[in-house]
Amino acid sequence: MKIGILSIVGVGLIGGSIGLAVRQRKLAERVRGIGWRQQALDEAISLGAIDNGTLNLREGVVDADAVIFCTPVAGMVEQILTVAASAKRGTLLTDVGSTKAVIVGEVENRLPAGVDFVGSHPLAGSEKRGVRFADATLFEGRLAIVTKTPKTSAVALERTKALWEALGSQVRVMNPSEHDRAVAITSHLPHLLAATLAGILPPELTELTASGFRDTTRIAAGDPGLWSGIFGQNRTAVLAALAMFRERLQRIQDALERDDVAEIKQWLESAQKIREGLGDVTS
Amino acid sequence: MKIGILSIVGVGLIGGSIGLAVRQRKLAERVRGIGWRQQALDEAISLGAIDNGTLNLREGVVDADAVIFCTPVAGMVEQILTVAASAKRGTLLTDVGSTKAVIVGEVENRLPAGVDFVGSHPLAGSEKRGVRFADATLFEGRLAIVTKTPKTSAVALERTKALWEALGSQVRVMNPSEHDRAVAITSHLPHLLAATLAGILPPELTELTASGFRDTTRIAAGDPGLWSGIFGQNRTAVLAALAMFRERLQRIQDALERDDVAEIKQWLESAQKIREGLGDVTS
Repeated sequence: MKIGILSIVGVGLIGGSIGLAVRQRKLAERVRGIGWRQQALDEAISLGAIDNGTLNLREGVVDADAVIFCTPVAGMVEQILTVAASAKRGTLLTDVGSTKAVIVGEVENRLPAGVDFVGSHPLAGSEKRGVRFADATLFEGRLAIVTKTPKTSAVALERTKALWEALGSQVRVMNPSEHDRAVAITSHLPHLLAATLAGILPPELTELTASGFRDTTRIAAGDPGLWSGIFGQNRTAVLAALAMFRERLQRIQDALERDDVAEIKQWLESAQKIREGLGDVTS
Repeated sequence: MKIGILSIVGVGLIGGSIGLAVRQRKLAERVRGIGWRQQALDEAISLGAIDNGTLNLREGVVDADAVIFCTPVAGMVEQILTVAASAKRGTLLTDVGSTKAVIVGEVENRLPAGVDFVGSHPLAGSEKRGVRFADATLFEGRLAIVTKTPKTSAVALERTKALWEALGSQVRVMNPSEHDRAVAITSHLPHLLAATLAGILPPELTELTASGFRDTTRIAAGDPGLWSGIFGQNRTAVLAALAMFRERLQRIQDALERDDVAEIKQWLESAQKIREGLGDVTS
């Protein structure tokens, strides 16, 4: 695949990593960053993540062949629709948001003719923020979910898949609700639990935390603004995942109250097996 | 400090790391390993974790100046008392168990005269098992908790503190119950949550897990036999920590159900601040 002008809206860790990878792999003739602070754009240029940048959203997309939105999900629908109104015919719009049903649904309902939007969600990231943590290899070997609905253009879907594959990802096509239910379990519930656990740590026990507590709560260091938007948009699926978790937690609590060591051991063995199946067990 | 013969009961990741560090730092004249499989002892010798080994517990401790128990907590009291009955006068016994009230309480009640026991718990470890993962630097810069009760000998307490300090740890003295309540929150509750979360992952979502799920559940890969013993011995404090967690979880669920984005964001900000205060936020 080859893109003429690729505009990246939001040049932070994810947007910057896309820019770095696209430029290193020469997937576009020009990579333009759109940001809210000139300093961040200058940093992105000096790190090689973008060729040039602008603070003006419309100006940054008017001649773009593809635009990728790497901003917090809460404001993304309005940004996509603003860009759609300014973009030239045939421009491909996609995003990297962690929720898909609200974004894809609202955008599809209001998208002008001649512009295509396809939802994306690369399963790669970090609790870190900012283009200085951008990494050209961030998407290599990772899964990128691309959404398909009855309104999705077949051509736009293929172009979106090709973009992620060109960045080194494996692509999986899902419908937006299926995506949201899945990541509620694999990503949003873990964040909720990590933040809840971090939140109850009494200050006097800080020095008694070791790698177990630190790993279990690592993602709680993520951006609260970003994550409150994710929880807001995926409320229903997160509540369902939480209910499933609490039901299991209750059974474990019951076993502990009964001092049922055999059941506790069986539960731990089952969890160990599942966790070992995920690989990457490093400290 | 200088020990004549140091016997390590259980030469796995922790016992092996102690052996490696003691030998590299020349803190003992001889390091002897006591194990249950000759193959594991041979491996420990070839890795430099022990000078020699034996499968016979009594034989391994009869001339030891210090004995450190690095076995799962569930069987530790009996092992300590068996060794205490065979050890020479003045031998220091200590352990590395993750629970302290049951071990220290039961041992102190039944310890013969002339042998000292002091409970220890180095806050270092891994979900990995086996001497091949032993690391001489495992305790450097970490906290080691050493317990003190009205029955603890002042001399033995100082010898135990000196051992951990010689391994590079900072020592904190606590009473056993205080220790158990603290680690119920900082270690045992995180393990319980990680294992519960790992346990509810539907198999078809395995490939949708990314670093967030993997980090949050990493410790669920720990040894089920070891951990069921820990939960059994620290049941009361773990249930209290779980109650505190569930109370907070309910408040977050309520906020989600009300779609109270402001409260959710405030909660996430507070959790982020606490987590960032712990440091080590690396992916």
